[in-house]
Amino acid sequence: MGSMFQLMQQVIVQKERILTDKADLTSYSYDASFGVYMPEIVVQPLTVQEVAGVMKIANEHKIPVYPRGQGTSLSGGPLPVRGGIVMDLSQWTSKLEIDHENMLAIVSPGVTAQAINNAALKHGLIYPPDPSSMNIATIGGNLAENSGGPKGLKYGVTKDYVIGLEVVTPEGEIIRTGGKTMKNVTGYDLTKLIVGSEGTLGVITEAILRLYPKPQATETLMALFDDIMDAGRAISNILSAGIIPSKLEIMDKASVEAVEAYRPSGLPTNIDALILIELDGHPEAIKDEIKRVNDVCLGANARAVQIANTAEEAASLWLARKLVSPAIVRLKPTKISEDATVPRSKIPEMFKRLKEIKEKYQIDLVVFGHAGDGNLHPNIIADERDKEEMKRVEKAVEEIFEAAIELGGTLSGEHGIGTLKAPFMEMELGAVGVDMMKRIKLAWDPNDVLNPGKIFPEPNQKFELVND
Amino acid sequence: MGSMFQLMQQVIVQKERILTDKADLTSYSYDASFGVYMPEIVVQPLTVQEVAGVMKIANEHKIPVYPRGQGTSLSGGPLPVRGGIVMDLSQWTSKLEIDHENMLAIVSPGVTAQAINNAALKHGLIYPPDPSSMNIATIGGNLAENSGGPKGLKYGVTKDYVIGLEVVTPEGEIIRTGGKTMKNVTGYDLTKLIVGSEGTLGVITEAILRLYPKPQATETLMALFDDIMDAGRAISNILSAGIIPSKLEIMDKASVEAVEAYRPSGLPTNIDALILIELDGHPEAIKDEIKRVNDVCLGANARAVQIANTAEEAASLWLARKLVSPAIVRLKPTKISEDATVPRSKIPEMFKRLKEIKEKYQIDLVVFGHAGDGNLHPNIIADERDKEEMKRVEKAVEEIFEAAIELGGTLSGEHGIGTLKAPFMEMELGAVGVDMMKRIKLAWDPNDVLNPGKIFPEPNQKFELVND
Repeated sequence: MGSMFQLMQQVIVQKERILTDKADLTSYSYDASFGVYMPEIVVQPLTVQEVAGVMKIANEHKIPVYPRGQGTSLSGGPLPVRGGIVMDLSQWTSKLEIDHENMLAIVSPGVTAQAINNAALKHGLIYPPDPSSMNIATIGGNLAENSGGPKGLKYGVTKDYVIGLEVVTPEGEIIRTGGKTMKNVTGYDLTKLIVGSEGTLGVITEAILRLYPKPQATETLMALFDDIMDAGRAISNILSAGIIPSKLEIMDKASVEAVEAYRPSGLPTNIDALILIELDGHPEAIKDEIKRVNDVCLGANARAVQIANTAEEAASLWLARKLVSPAIVRLKPTKISEDATVPRSKIPEMFKRLKEIKEKYQIDLVVFGHAGDGNLHPNIIADERDKEEMKRVEKAVEEIFEAAIELGGTLSGEHGIGTLKAPFMEMELGAVGVDMMKRIKLAWDPNDVLNPGKIFPEPNQKFELVND
Repeated sequence: MGSMFQLMQQVIVQKERILTDKADLTSYSYDASFGVYMPEIVVQPLTVQEVAGVMKIANEHKIPVYPRGQGTSLSGGPLPVRGGIVMDLSQWTSKLEIDHENMLAIVSPGVTAQAINNAALKHGLIYPPDPSSMNIATIGGNLAENSGGPKGLKYGVTKDYVIGLEVVTPEGEIIRTGGKTMKNVTGYDLTKLIVGSEGTLGVITEAILRLYPKPQATETLMALFDDIMDAGRAISNILSAGIIPSKLEIMDKASVEAVEAYRPSGLPTNIDALILIELDGHPEAIKDEIKRVNDVCLGANARAVQIANTAEEAASLWLARKLVSPAIVRLKPTKISEDATVPRSKIPEMFKRLKEIKEKYQIDLVVFGHAGDGNLHPNIIADERDKEEMKRVEKAVEEIFEAAIELGGTLSGEHGIGTLKAPFMEMELGAVGVDMMKRIKLAWDPNDVLNPGKIFPEPNQKFELVND
């Protein structure tokens, strides 16, 4: 351990930013997913030179490096599964520049999406990507995972906003990708390759992000359904009618009940599902769209459609949606949060499949999420200590993945592959597809030092939520 | 030649789709850029099995393969610079499916963007990317080059619409990337890596493209300026005001004069520059925006702002803009069409630099293009037979690239690197940046058989428009 500390001292300027205490290491041994893995050392770089120095040493000595933001990953992205160095980038918040004229933000990896959006708002601009964790998670983590959020439906995901990066390669070289122009076709698109690569191809040390003019007006509606299948049809019909809401979220009966039990928000619990719709844009356009959304929902057997009369009412509805996650872990301690995604026309079919899986395995399955883009969040709540239950959960999760892929969907819409879903990669991509990805990893990181043990399955790796 | 024909006959089902006649080969020896290179053979595959078969043979025998659409490339993308096989994908137009419910088009590589948009319109949808060549160029070419167009400003470029691909790798394996879901973070984003890789990483045999609801209304304005610098400021101020037009194009005096001499369109020639603005969306929103655009332009010293009163008037203005390219080649036979792009706040500065370069080298420089996203098209017209003039043009082009990069821009906004700009790659990306791209190429195409000689500079390669 002494020697690892000495190596890091060669490149990290202040020794206070090199952590080796057991207590410190422990707090970097887990994230919001499963598993506990102790790192040997934690460093907190604050400059690109420090990051490059750490990577050069790590590459030379073949020490694994695990970049980390605030540890909110739901797929194990920052877990130091092979020990080594955790590189904590959450302290690096020095840059948050708004370039108003070019509608850009230039940011350090440790700032939050919330901070970027707040800074943009001062210039009449917004940073649209809004992962639920946006007030704590770092932009570095958002970039690594290509985070989504409710606004993904209309505004796209993190990747759609990144036009330039400063990146340290696995071998410790500093490169710049893209730049400040909206269009750039000079060579391969390394920006969009690195964003979403889950910290396996490079450490992002700076990003240039697009901003967008703040919409003139925003309105929120809630539609109540006695049958979740009707809610699925309403969602599909709203979009087919040519309306693209800024958010279009679903909560099933179980999620509504959990929220009302946790922090009563005035949601009706005598329903099967509700959808929350946010429309933004020109006030006259919204007026038209409210009328059309109302008609479409009633046409799909909505029991009622309610419009939030004030900004406070709207905020309280969206807060209720955000409370689903904390609310359901009050029912049982272990939450398995999935993000299997299907083409939106398959949403009703996916609801049907999820209901069947719930009954088959007798599990507590709650369904909510970004229904408008087919990105549901089937969450299973269980008790990790109940091994028999966890085995049923494992089987149920496998069937959820299979159902999503059978319906033309994907394993992960926004949480990433990380450690947990690696065994399913070939099911979606085929052996050659996975191999073409591995070739890129090998070409960029020949010593496998950057976030090793992620995305790609180990030989014979199986999906396991409990260690036997 | 006999042997090459026999090899291709093993995989191309009808021998009529294997061309070896001198006259046929000649018509595949050039594109819309510079240079003439004869292929040894041309194949016209119509299935993914045929493409995979050709690639397997080529990889085994180390024969270069050059995928090609309709040959409208301005950067030499399809030129068979090392002979071998030209793979003509323009005949493969069998699939053009509109999935209305998911707002997607699924297409074969030979269909045009125009055909896709026309098919979408029947469902009240649009395919927004609109390269000027959209009625002849193939979607396969658009995908390979990540083509832009005037609507790029508001709607983005080709890449922003691609969510899934079927691709044949350089070694002849068939893979599928992405899919039909809006969100997908399963593994590396091979879709966005392959789109824009200029046919060097894989042959695209099918694409899944996003469509968008047709805007309810569209209006066109023209603003006239006595000084192009004022036009630049107007463009910057419109965008800073939070208005995002669907198109925002500039034509300088020389382009206006060329069009009026070629096919009179009623454009005023006694000005220094004009900008054309298209607004789309809800009719009430457009009404507001017209007023604001008018005020911004007059505030930036516009001599006048005119609104097209009818759809015909609007169409005639946009046709005039499209006529710039054919019009200027009537002045002199050789056109060097650049697409250097700068951050939009640097547009006025770029105009100044272009004027200086024009005067310094006494060249015929015409400036028009997608000013709203900083993607100008400085076009130099010259006579290829005048070697002395061409040498001045070479120097001027080099300085245009240098100016763009100095202003924080890029070599290419939408035409690609191809053969011509390869020598400048390091200037923008640095040696390590280029090396990281080369590693991907080498990992995917170890025998360098797919579109070899493109993007990456040969040792000591210089920029040359004329062969000494």
